[in-house]
Amino acid sequence: MSLITRGIRVCYGSSLPAIALTSTANKFRPLCRTYSVTQKQVPKKMAAERTLPQIFKFVDKNAESYKALLKEAVAIPSVSCDPKYRDDCVRMVHWMQDKLKEVGASTELRDIGYQTIDDKQIKLPPVLIGSLGNDTTKNTICVYGHLDVQPALKSDGWETEPFDLQERNGKLYGRGSTDDKGPVLGWLHAINAYKGIGEELPVNLKFIFECMEESGSEGLDELLMEKLKPEGFFDTVDYVCISDNYWLGTTKPCITYGLRGISYYFLEVECAKMDLHSGVYGGTVHEAMSDLIYLMNTLVDKDGKILITDIYKSVAPLLESEKKLYNSIDFDPEAYRKSIEAHKLAHNGVKEQLLMHRWRYPSLSLHGIEGAAFQPGAKTVIPGKVIGKFSIRIVPNQEPQEVEQLVFDYINKKWAERGSPNKMRITAQSGRAWTENPDHPHYQAAARATKLIYQTDPDMSREGGSIPVTITLQEASSRNVLLLPMGAGDDMAHSQNEKLNVRNYIEGIKLFAAYLYEVGNLPK
Amino acid sequence: MSLITRGIRVCYGSSLPAIALTSTANKFRPLCRTYSVTQKQVPKKMAAERTLPQIFKFVDKNAESYKALLKEAVAIPSVSCDPKYRDDCVRMVHWMQDKLKEVGASTELRDIGYQTIDDKQIKLPPVLIGSLGNDTTKNTICVYGHLDVQPALKSDGWETEPFDLQERNGKLYGRGSTDDKGPVLGWLHAINAYKGIGEELPVNLKFIFECMEESGSEGLDELLMEKLKPEGFFDTVDYVCISDNYWLGTTKPCITYGLRGISYYFLEVECAKMDLHSGVYGGTVHEAMSDLIYLMNTLVDKDGKILITDIYKSVAPLLESEKKLYNSIDFDPEAYRKSIEAHKLAHNGVKEQLLMHRWRYPSLSLHGIEGAAFQPGAKTVIPGKVIGKFSIRIVPNQEPQEVEQLVFDYINKKWAERGSPNKMRITAQSGRAWTENPDHPHYQAAARATKLIYQTDPDMSREGGSIPVTITLQEASSRNVLLLPMGAGDDMAHSQNEKLNVRNYIEGIKLFAAYLYEVGNLPK
Repeated sequence: MSLITRGIRVCYGSSLPAIALTSTANKFRPLCRTYSVTQKQVPKKMAAERTLPQIFKFVDKNAESYKALLKEAVAIPSVSCDPKYRDDCVRMVHWMQDKLKEVGASTELRDIGYQTIDDKQIKLPPVLIGSLGNDTTKNTICVYGHLDVQPALKSDGWETEPFDLQERNGKLYGRGSTDDKGPVLGWLHAINAYKGIGEELPVNLKFIFECMEESGSEGLDELLMEKLKPEGFFDTVDYVCISDNYWLGTTKPCITYGLRGISYYFLEVECAKMDLHSGVYGGTVHEAMSDLIYLMNTLVDKDGKILITDIYKSVAPLLESEKKLYNSIDFDPEAYRKSIEAHKLAHNGVKEQLLMHRWRYPSLSLHGIEGAAFQPGAKTVIPGKVIGKFSIRIVPNQEPQEVEQLVFDYINKKWAERGSPNKMRITAQSGRAWTENPDHPHYQAAARATKLIYQTDPDMSREGGSIPVTITLQEASSRNVLLLPMGAGDDMAHSQNEKLNVRNYIEGIKLFAAYLYEVGNLPK
Repeated sequence: MSLITRGIRVCYGSSLPAIALTSTANKFRPLCRTYSVTQKQVPKKMAAERTLPQIFKFVDKNAESYKALLKEAVAIPSVSCDPKYRDDCVRMVHWMQDKLKEVGASTELRDIGYQTIDDKQIKLPPVLIGSLGNDTTKNTICVYGHLDVQPALKSDGWETEPFDLQERNGKLYGRGSTDDKGPVLGWLHAINAYKGIGEELPVNLKFIFECMEESGSEGLDELLMEKLKPEGFFDTVDYVCISDNYWLGTTKPCITYGLRGISYYFLEVECAKMDLHSGVYGGTVHEAMSDLIYLMNTLVDKDGKILITDIYKSVAPLLESEKKLYNSIDFDPEAYRKSIEAHKLAHNGVKEQLLMHRWRYPSLSLHGIEGAAFQPGAKTVIPGKVIGKFSIRIVPNQEPQEVEQLVFDYINKKWAERGSPNKMRITAQSGRAWTENPDHPHYQAAARATKLIYQTDPDMSREGGSIPVTITLQEASSRNVLLLPMGAGDDMAHSQNEKLNVRNYIEGIKLFAAYLYEVGNLPK
């Protein structure tokens, strides 16, 4: 099946919607609904019967050049969390600006000021804003993506250099390949494909490409809410699309309508003004590390149950009707387990439980300790000040402020029980969970595009991760926001040997082109 | 008082020996004892009445050039634990070889093979062996020192660049200034001073300068025991001297006759083959970090009491007679606390308790976690494999093998109680505690030299730290080994803003010269 008939009830079968969690914030309507068709869609549809196959052919023909461009992008180590790569971040933004200009977009670099690290002011990389087309009869999509990446060193366990994209067995290995340089370039190639076959774009596009996403999108919210919104940037926007997440598994595409939020904690204990030699000082000081380890050990049990008092209280209750929805999702726990070589999954590996604990229940992870020994070898230091890092992925209906207060109260109680003479301090950074209405024409358009490319109905999914800008874009634009993943569930974003399948990259470009077409057909 | 009268009972008052712990391995005899004087000492002594004051004057006159040479040495970042500085380590050894040659020593670089890091074979820096003088009528001292340093970055909290020696308020700040480049150069300058005033050295010298001390002296034991010893290197050695530790406080010198050993543990937990995104995977895996934190939390309580079953059982019992000895040691707990800006010391800051827990009781420190997030900022990773690092400073009569077994048994028991499906593994590296007989003419010679320079009787002290090579040198040479510290107790070796007081450096050079003289006067 390719393009669908308009003006009738559109329904994509039982797998859609996959999940409809009850949340006081988001009351999902049933998916199947009627909407009217305007006259102008008919000629467009007919044109598209020619257009899309031509585009797909064009994309296949240019696959090698798309890989080459991704290699160029990956080669710029735009690691945002480490200031020593800040120049590369700026270079990456300029590189992308040139590419947008080449496809005819008007662009602008927006200064977003400074960040403070170790009491030093460090300039943030600019945000790349772009605009392509201003036909008032067309829909306008605002596309968001990010150009920065997580840190990566070959010595972390990469098989090849992380910043040199390498193709092996149909996979493109490199830091940023799937998160998020591949998808960002996907938009570029989709536009280029329309141009390549001499067709005009079916929509107007607006772009927001930042380079600080992996570091909390510092400075972006202010730009969106305090500058772009008042300036009217979002006035013409009809839909918002973000491609910065992944399929659930490795074969079935999905469209994502929910993300967990995040509440990230910095738990600091100080026993001395400097690090101490453990031979010289061991036995004479109350060591900060043992206090921190004690506190970190009170947070979560071995099965992942969060021990913070009342933390589950505000979580949206699991209704009987919702429970069943997890069953139809295409997700193979054993393949998932094998892909990470875990010895055993949590919740006895039961599919529905795993999905629920990824999407609709909070989870707490202990990430590490800043200020302590981290190098290989036998460093014999008593750290003077250590900062434990942990975060809770929060879910509907947990509000960040409420969660933070529960954590602060709990840590303060445990600290009092400890009775240590050391100094303790805890701070937090949080972003809310997000859910959208998957029963919206925008989602249906994306679903049609997906089915056209992959010949299967996509799962309507949620994600365990957090993309805080999603909420900001929803608030700034007041429009429907949709997450359209390009990569597969085993792409290993943030991890060693991050990759993007060649198939996901090339078919993803086609998907984006088809999505542009489908949104172009939505009523204006 | 300058030089002392020979042939009579030599006794340095009640503060000597400060401590005599009962150990089955080391039965200390009372300090005051008689030893005979040979005829050849008299003319030497007379010569020295001229010689040493001339030397001291020469040293004072050349103080600036000594600082300049230390600046040169500190500028070579010979960080041994990080292979990326390996070339600098090699450069450091060559630099020192040139300096030894300049004072007339014959030198040799001994290859000690490779170390394995992350399955890679990395060449170890050579060990610098030297020899100066072969007068069979003179005593021969074997001097050990190390040329490598702990890692240091300005961003760790240094006020100035760690590898650029800076003088401020009578202190020389720089990594390696006190540990151990200052003391190593001290020997060089002491030799040079004899040459500078046209006097021959009162002793023969042998040198062993390595560049892997901060990384467990890898390869050194084999060189000493399997090569240098069989080759006869130690046959002519009469005494061994190491300057690689510190005074107890900041004003009173000491000579050190005991060191704690160390038993260092690598506690590894693995939950997946790679790091995982905490959004995508959080809630579905048994996280390695929470298992590791659980295990690390079972090791020590907030007051520093080690919780490992039976760990205190073999510690040498505290006798009534020993208890009193701690009282006379010059140690100010409040100054000690202030120097590290600790909020409160362990053991309620009681001096005797602090000294005992530094010297004669084991202590356990949690150093950090390899494989977890350690950077500033909010990294959202679930580490796949983490290695917790902790160590126990062991004491007489704890044997490393016995301590390791207790730790392994305890961790295995706690791991079984945890019931985690993850993989756990623990490995250890250990070195024995060391004590020497401080009631030995060698110690008395060093005490005379110290009193000559500082006009006060040195404390006979032990150290909480470990210098494993001390035991090896004791075994390889079968001679009396002595630790003669140059730096002060607040020098912050291994920490930020490591320094060496100008006074300790310059007077330390004089001390070494006087020590060479005093050992030259000991019966051959």
